[in-house]
Amino acid sequence: MINSSLLGLIEGAKANSSITNIYGALYGLEGIFKGLIIDLNKESNGNLQNLRFTPGAALGSVRFKMPTHHEDPMLYKELEAIFMKLDIRFFFYIGGNDSMDTCRKIADYFEVSSYKCNVLGIPKTIDNDLVETYCSPGYGSSIKYIANAFLGIIIDTKSYMKGRVTVVEIMGRDAGWLTAGSKLAQVAGFGPDLIYVPEHPFSLEDFLTDVKKIYSQKQHVIVAVAEGIKDQSGNYLLTQHHFKVNDDFGHLQLGGVSYYLAEQVKKTFDYSVRAIELNLPQRSSVSVLSKTDVEIAYMVGKNAISYATQGSTSMMVGVSYSTGFETVLVPLVKVANYVKTLPANFINTCGNDITNDFVEYALPLIQGEMAIPTKNGLPTFAILEKHLLNNE
Amino acid sequence: MINSSLLGLIEGAKANSSITNIYGALYGLEGIFKGLIIDLNKESNGNLQNLRFTPGAALGSVRFKMPTHHEDPMLYKELEAIFMKLDIRFFFYIGGNDSMDTCRKIADYFEVSSYKCNVLGIPKTIDNDLVETYCSPGYGSSIKYIANAFLGIIIDTKSYMKGRVTVVEIMGRDAGWLTAGSKLAQVAGFGPDLIYVPEHPFSLEDFLTDVKKIYSQKQHVIVAVAEGIKDQSGNYLLTQHHFKVNDDFGHLQLGGVSYYLAEQVKKTFDYSVRAIELNLPQRSSVSVLSKTDVEIAYMVGKNAISYATQGSTSMMVGVSYSTGFETVLVPLVKVANYVKTLPANFINTCGNDITNDFVEYALPLIQGEMAIPTKNGLPTFAILEKHLLNNE
Repeated sequence: MINSSLLGLIEGAKANSSITNIYGALYGLEGIFKGLIIDLNKESNGNLQNLRFTPGAALGSVRFKMPTHHEDPMLYKELEAIFMKLDIRFFFYIGGNDSMDTCRKIADYFEVSSYKCNVLGIPKTIDNDLVETYCSPGYGSSIKYIANAFLGIIIDTKSYMKGRVTVVEIMGRDAGWLTAGSKLAQVAGFGPDLIYVPEHPFSLEDFLTDVKKIYSQKQHVIVAVAEGIKDQSGNYLLTQHHFKVNDDFGHLQLGGVSYYLAEQVKKTFDYSVRAIELNLPQRSSVSVLSKTDVEIAYMVGKNAISYATQGSTSMMVGVSYSTGFETVLVPLVKVANYVKTLPANFINTCGNDITNDFVEYALPLIQGEMAIPTKNGLPTFAILEKHLLNNE
Repeated sequence: MINSSLLGLIEGAKANSSITNIYGALYGLEGIFKGLIIDLNKESNGNLQNLRFTPGAALGSVRFKMPTHHEDPMLYKELEAIFMKLDIRFFFYIGGNDSMDTCRKIADYFEVSSYKCNVLGIPKTIDNDLVETYCSPGYGSSIKYIANAFLGIIIDTKSYMKGRVTVVEIMGRDAGWLTAGSKLAQVAGFGPDLIYVPEHPFSLEDFLTDVKKIYSQKQHVIVAVAEGIKDQSGNYLLTQHHFKVNDDFGHLQLGGVSYYLAEQVKKTFDYSVRAIELNLPQRSSVSVLSKTDVEIAYMVGKNAISYATQGSTSMMVGVSYSTGFETVLVPLVKVANYVKTLPANFINTCGNDITNDFVEYALPLIQGEMAIPTKNGLPTFAILEKHLLNNE
């Protein structure tokens, strides 16, 4: 969805008379400091239109820890010089918590600097853990993918007479938003039997009791589990059980909890088991998109241009929902470094299922299908030409 | 695709004046012996139409090892009695190698029995390893899913400046058909860098050399690997390295080879790594279907009715391809217990890539998109009512 927001920004900027040039930084801030700034006016319109459904980040992505301007004033002077040279007066940064934190720091600087630049954050994270917004673009398509994956897995599994316990692992370190999405499969008639999220302490004993009970009734048990479930003491289950070699830029690496739980079931009851990690496709799927999600992402980008040119700065362009989806401005200071976890009413009392309140919350986010143009039976994507500025 | 063939059979049978009743056995032969036979005439047409894109097996699936009629004559007498009672004169069995073997044994029996019943096999296996047919229905949609998954994974991975080695594991014990499908992503501009299939002996040393070379050039290395790759002595890599708890009805359990390889890369070069198992969704995906595959599956089922009523028996309804796809009859004896592996010209000489010959072979199989009806943003499926015969 980051690309759909980018398209919204580009089209909003092209239509706005206060804006004369549109630049894109490759790999976020890292690209700015390395001179990797491209002229987005030079991209063909046909290619840009494909941004709506292109996965990944067309401009590249980065994990860059920005110091504050008190910690590293020289870095900010350098940034200001680059902005000044290109006459950059509006700056938009798309991403999740870390990006909103970066964005806030830059906004803080330009609040006190003599060079004026309006800075807005554009939310995008499949984790859906940004506060002060109904949702984060990207989330709707991810849970639509997850619900579809569960439908396929459950229907396939139930084709067999022989019983089996299937444990499906979903991304989410500290929030169960993505895992809760598995519950949506129930709307189409086939939901998971048990759902465990990081917000509720996980007890292996209770889990095994739950599995045994359902197995004895139905023979097929489908479990959805967040990679980041924690025990009663708040420790990640997986820090004690090393299955995985995936690493990731210094964050604690989770994943593999499905194998651990499947193994416990096998050991305890000798049931047939299967462990499935949904893994990267839940983020990068090109085949299951929510049209609503794509449109929200576009709207957030497009409206950001109006907000910025009308003088807003140090804000995130959030999403509100009542009869339809709209944008709403939220101070970045209220967003950066906060994490939105599942509210209590989205989790059942004993912590092994997701409630209908969640379904009511999430269903609007997955509505509508995207018609993606194909060639040779495969989707066609935006591959930007990336005309670097001749930065002398 | 098994359900699309079932629909072809049902519609072919309804249109054929020699056929008065249409029965379905739940869970294959096991259902027949357990009295789980349903009346398919009683299913609503709207529901039946949804079979075209419903995953899993609507009638249920089974792994049932059928003895020959020499080994267990009583079992065949029992089968004959059930057929006689219901006046079953045409019998169709849908599946892969094991099912074709079962089908051949039953056909053999009715060839020598005084009760006449024409027996035809309908190919369906995502493994694509049945001989004497251009393809097996199910395969086209699976490789389309795999190609799409690679597109998403590769585009996502390349969004980052920081390098990484991503090892993606694909189903396939003894044949690399599914893994070869990853090569199709190249047609859309983003294919894997290295592809390893079971047909070519795997050398860890060569693999590490390949990875290092590509990493030094491109920083991003995407590897597609079949779960069933074997070392020079013909041993599965994974029998020596136990990562997995998945078990499966007595077959040797593979999987986890991606974790093993990613770990070797990490240990040897300390590159960032990621392991991804595509797992069950490559078989059960409801969101990526090849219209061509769906149509072939339907045609194979529908034509089976004509063949059987015109007197054919002991045959499999295979697929041929020249300008379009057609059906062709193949003696079951030439199919059962043979396994079709990738031909030599589909694998490059050093065994780390798939050739353009394969792409030319496979591309026709993934053409066309299915418009799947949705409700609440999720697909609607056929859930058969399953009217059991009152079998007294």
